[in-house]
Amino acid sequence: MPIMLKEFYTTGVISDTKNIPNPGELLQAERRKQTVDPNRLHEFLEGSKEKSESFKRIVQQIERDPVLTSSPRMYDMSKAEQRDVTVDKINRLSKYIEVESFSDFNLRLNILSVFDPQVMTRIGVNLGLFLSCVRGSGTFEQLKFWALDQNCAYIRNIYGCFAMTELAHGSNVAGIETTATFDKESDEFVINTPHIGATKWWIGGAAHSATHSSVYARLIVDGKDYGVKAFVVPLRDINHELNPGITVGDIGAKMGRDGIDNGWIQFSNVRIPRFFMLQKWCTVSRNGTVKMPPLEQLSYSALLGGRVMMVNDSYRMTARVSTIALRYAIGRRQFKAKESDALETQLLDYPLHQRRLLPYLAAAYVMAAGSYRIDQIINETTEALEDAVDNDDAKEIEKCIGQMKSLFIDSGSLKSTCTWLAAEAIDQCRQACGGHGYSAYSGFGKAYADWAVQCTWEGDNNVLGLNIGKPIVKHSLAVLKEDKVVYGSTSFLTHTKQHLNDKPALTDVKDARDLKKVVAAIELAILRLAARTAKIVEGNGMDYGVVGNDLVNLSKLKCHHFLLKEFSERLNENSYKEVNPILATLGALHGATQVFDRYAGIFLAEKAVSPEFISGLNATIIPELCAEIRPHVVGLTDGFQQSDAMINSGLGCYDGNTYENYFRIVKQLNPPENFKAPYSDKLEAMLRRQTLEVRDRGEKSEEAEEILSVKVDDEED
Amino acid sequence: MPIMLKEFYTTGVISDTKNIPNPGELLQAERRKQTVDPNRLHEFLEGSKEKSESFKRIVQQIERDPVLTSSPRMYDMSKAEQRDVTVDKINRLSKYIEVESFSDFNLRLNILSVFDPQVMTRIGVNLGLFLSCVRGSGTFEQLKFWALDQNCAYIRNIYGCFAMTELAHGSNVAGIETTATFDKESDEFVINTPHIGATKWWIGGAAHSATHSSVYARLIVDGKDYGVKAFVVPLRDINHELNPGITVGDIGAKMGRDGIDNGWIQFSNVRIPRFFMLQKWCTVSRNGTVKMPPLEQLSYSALLGGRVMMVNDSYRMTARVSTIALRYAIGRRQFKAKESDALETQLLDYPLHQRRLLPYLAAAYVMAAGSYRIDQIINETTEALEDAVDNDDAKEIEKCIGQMKSLFIDSGSLKSTCTWLAAEAIDQCRQACGGHGYSAYSGFGKAYADWAVQCTWEGDNNVLGLNIGKPIVKHSLAVLKEDKVVYGSTSFLTHTKQHLNDKPALTDVKDARDLKKVVAAIELAILRLAARTAKIVEGNGMDYGVVGNDLVNLSKLKCHHFLLKEFSERLNENSYKEVNPILATLGALHGATQVFDRYAGIFLAEKAVSPEFISGLNATIIPELCAEIRPHVVGLTDGFQQSDAMINSGLGCYDGNTYENYFRIVKQLNPPENFKAPYSDKLEAMLRRQTLEVRDRGEKSEEAEEILSVKVDDEED
Repeated sequence: MPIMLKEFYTTGVISDTKNIPNPGELLQAERRKQTVDPNRLHEFLEGSKEKSESFKRIVQQIERDPVLTSSPRMYDMSKAEQRDVTVDKINRLSKYIEVESFSDFNLRLNILSVFDPQVMTRIGVNLGLFLSCVRGSGTFEQLKFWALDQNCAYIRNIYGCFAMTELAHGSNVAGIETTATFDKESDEFVINTPHIGATKWWIGGAAHSATHSSVYARLIVDGKDYGVKAFVVPLRDINHELNPGITVGDIGAKMGRDGIDNGWIQFSNVRIPRFFMLQKWCTVSRNGTVKMPPLEQLSYSALLGGRVMMVNDSYRMTARVSTIALRYAIGRRQFKAKESDALETQLLDYPLHQRRLLPYLAAAYVMAAGSYRIDQIINETTEALEDAVDNDDAKEIEKCIGQMKSLFIDSGSLKSTCTWLAAEAIDQCRQACGGHGYSAYSGFGKAYADWAVQCTWEGDNNVLGLNIGKPIVKHSLAVLKEDKVVYGSTSFLTHTKQHLNDKPALTDVKDARDLKKVVAAIELAILRLAARTAKIVEGNGMDYGVVGNDLVNLSKLKCHHFLLKEFSERLNENSYKEVNPILATLGALHGATQVFDRYAGIFLAEKAVSPEFISGLNATIIPELCAEIRPHVVGLTDGFQQSDAMINSGLGCYDGNTYENYFRIVKQLNPPENFKAPYSDKLEAMLRRQTLEVRDRGEKSEEAEEILSVKVDDEED
Repeated sequence: MPIMLKEFYTTGVISDTKNIPNPGELLQAERRKQTVDPNRLHEFLEGSKEKSESFKRIVQQIERDPVLTSSPRMYDMSKAEQRDVTVDKINRLSKYIEVESFSDFNLRLNILSVFDPQVMTRIGVNLGLFLSCVRGSGTFEQLKFWALDQNCAYIRNIYGCFAMTELAHGSNVAGIETTATFDKESDEFVINTPHIGATKWWIGGAAHSATHSSVYARLIVDGKDYGVKAFVVPLRDINHELNPGITVGDIGAKMGRDGIDNGWIQFSNVRIPRFFMLQKWCTVSRNGTVKMPPLEQLSYSALLGGRVMMVNDSYRMTARVSTIALRYAIGRRQFKAKESDALETQLLDYPLHQRRLLPYLAAAYVMAAGSYRIDQIINETTEALEDAVDNDDAKEIEKCIGQMKSLFIDSGSLKSTCTWLAAEAIDQCRQACGGHGYSAYSGFGKAYADWAVQCTWEGDNNVLGLNIGKPIVKHSLAVLKEDKVVYGSTSFLTHTKQHLNDKPALTDVKDARDLKKVVAAIELAILRLAARTAKIVEGNGMDYGVVGNDLVNLSKLKCHHFLLKEFSERLNENSYKEVNPILATLGALHGATQVFDRYAGIFLAEKAVSPEFISGLNATIIPELCAEIRPHVVGLTDGFQQSDAMINSGLGCYDGNTYENYFRIVKQLNPPENFKAPYSDKLEAMLRRQTLEVRDRGEKSEEAEEILSVKVDDEED
């Protein structure tokens, strides 16, 4: 049944209404048939009923807030407008932070990172990075002073930024070249940028917002280099004028996130009092005695929060873009499956289209569970560590450090693999919407441009991959050479020797439905790949450089191991029994597509599964799983509970009326009465220009030739 | 040796110059050691010495042209500015087209598609799409009238656009719903948009530029629907005012290519004379007799040129971005390989970094050869067909149609696979430049945003993949069931039966160096996958829908088969002996990474190669090939002969002085004296705002509580 004839349909005479597209009707009809309650799904995704309710409450609040909400208008904004609007939003948020709980405000930022990620980042350099640095490296009194007494935590009085990266130094923090030289005479540190390569670069907030900066610089006392430490350096005075010796600049246009005023900073012998050094772990006394306690590396643990948040961002972004593409694919018809069909087929009824999109729907669910779990672990570990340090409990501290190391591994493999997966999801979902995905109003373009940076910042994904793969191989080597027992999330490596054979974990493709078996197969692949890699490393004089590609692959597999293990364990908990069957199917699809099919080369080369298992994936099990998920797609996407303003796409509205919504946005933002462009005079002048002959003043005419030619006969040799 | 101390280095006291970054010096030192002549490489890439020289001449001309050249300034432009500047460039090009040869102007556009792809597209809708449509569907006289008499070919007087796609119809051209109803009485066609879904959409040039449009609409005569035909419909009069019944609108912001005024068009019973129908193949007589000759499908062959150009674009774009990332990786140092090293290691000396980037360098070379060949084939075939039609030679026409069909396959698999590969190259090369790759001035952001559309337009890559995979499986089925002999580029399918066993083509990983063997292994994988797919299709009542994923994989493998076969044959030609060894290594790397490693799952599942072959790729052969290519990288990238203006990146300049170039651009476009933002007042007001208590007018104070509270004792039950 066609939908009601609205404004746009009344242009021209409608002789036949049967072909009028009715995407909204299609979506609503499917929605009415859903059997799984989206609210229950959302509780699974967010972790509890309470969290689900907080989410909905805050989404509604943001949506109704005239400053914080999103609209397609943002896709038309220039860099200058984005910068301006972002400050308006931060200003607005500075009022919320004064009246709500820490956890509510955190959830607000987390949700805003879907509405408008650049707001989240620009406020995050102050509340997240700057204050995390002060918390991680400063004493309790230092934290209290900067955060509370100076009101930084309320975005009042001062605004911090985080100056770690330099123009010539990104991932290698230990190589930073900015210096902080202790001047004993004046009891000050002199902060200096020795050369262009040491210019602080990419510093969010530095160009225009920040009054203060946490600066990572080499501590130099009496000519001795004590390595990289953190200092608070004021950049601007109370009138927002630059302090002496400070040079800042705007690093200008970026691929995305133009609302953030990333900047560069050069320090020209800037003096700060000794007590501006953050001295929780390392202290410098009045006469220049440096104390370096062994726990210093823990100062970086304050940065782990960012990684964990990126796993959550990956879940939400993947949820957002798969919702857009799936709603579009339900409403869009394309080609007739059979010549005799009256209507063209819904895109999502094509097996290929299911194969293209449903793995991202599955990944969103799986990543949600992983995000929930890693967040739990980090909170538990951080609290335990803080308690242990407060109680000066050496044994407990040591235990916490061990957990922290394991957390660096898990969070690193999750951050890198999930942010890559989300980037791919945005791109693939865009392509699945065909040409319309390229419209800015689909939301994909800005989503991708804003997202892309997640793959390189706070640990470049490849460098993280190396750092995660290396300890896995080290463990393997220790097991092979010294029969070491491995603890923690890679404990399965302990049994390496007994699995170094050709026996596959899985031969029957039906086993791809059994998450426990899937996890076991991933363990086998990791174990054998790690052992193979260990041997190459050993054969190359312990050079890990040559196996970089394998290390990154190990990191990726480790991430999926974590995700599917946690997902499977969440399913075993009691509370979500009602939605378990469809969730289990999603988990199996994730394993079959994102793990087995994607890394088929590794699984087969390591003989962790049989060739028949792999060819069975695309032949039978993946299409079957997709077909089982297909009827639940509307409910599964509704389960994300992302509202229209949050999704902000002409193609992915809740009502499914793609064409009308999209056309309305286009017309609103580009009024058709402007059918002549502002530059139309130039265009028209080009079309009405004189002929070349006239413009050449006729000086190439036959007449001119006659006059200008000198008659000379060709000479013959 | 450090480079000379320049402006930026003199900030602060330089106590020690040994650590000052010297990327330019590193690059130049490597350049001096090159043994392969970049000019010879370029001749291979372009196809001949003559073509190489034409390329250099035109690049220089564009670079010196004040309007046509590129600069980092374009990365800062708003949509409005981009639209304006694009018209300036087209205006400038309209002068070149009057004075130069067709082939030179074509090469100019082709080169401009690297400088600024949106110019190429916006001019291309007129010169490429509109005129190709008139050429493909119109009579010689019709072409002459619109192109020459009306001066469309010179971008004078009229400007055409190409109105095929509709809001609800993209890939399925046959489903288009705009109608062209013959009105016998007035001898006119009535063009009409029946409903919103039939609105012409994405039409490049429609919003502001086009005066005319080639419109694809259903021909209706006496109530009978004759399918989709092409008509010329004027949109704007000589004063650039919209004609009656025409509604156009700007479709607004896009992910990229904002310089193009894509628009939508609705026709409300617009009348055109009968002779505005393009009537090369299909004619409508005065009294409404419709003649439908069998060759109609050939009208679409005029669109093949676009596909072929996209293969060339893929080569040039991959060349451009790999040049940026590789030059950056030579100059950038990161981490010390050993603690004892004095300096950090050059990025490109890490095996993982080679593994990440060199496959794109190889792909650029391989795609260049493929692009050259497919261009040759299309020219030969088109000429032969035109001759045959002119001579009314039925037998020759049939032969040409056969070739044209094969060309649709080859060009489709190349277009889809190569544009995907280039998109990936842009993204991976960006990531390989770490954070700096995210700067707009690196060039990657705009490159990706502009490029992305190539994967969905003029045949969505997945739909193309299905269309290419399907005939391959059909051939296989015919061979299996009827012992059919297959001709053309998939002739190897003829021997399907004798290869349906477990025998691998390659077991020794060293064979990855032998391009002939590589090609044979790809043939074996295609052959077995096609046969397996054929059986699934047969088992599913001949439904090709269920094997969509396999069809797309077959298309991708077919592309690489074409590329490596042509590349290998080019190497066997005599003229490039001098550069052959390094080119052969690039070809082998392409096979090892882009084919075997990427599709390892297929090769292993089909047992086309052994598991040991696959695990040997990353363990030995790929690192070896990378190590062999590494010393030649500067020469190989210089071989692309893309000038600084063409590459237009702060990170990829010829001189290699990354940090200085990048910093200079940042400072030029974002003067550091603007250290207060235009919106600074808002920001400062936020930081200086009163306390919450004051802003709440003190009405939550204890004093107020005293006054406002009503004292009521809690009741007890």
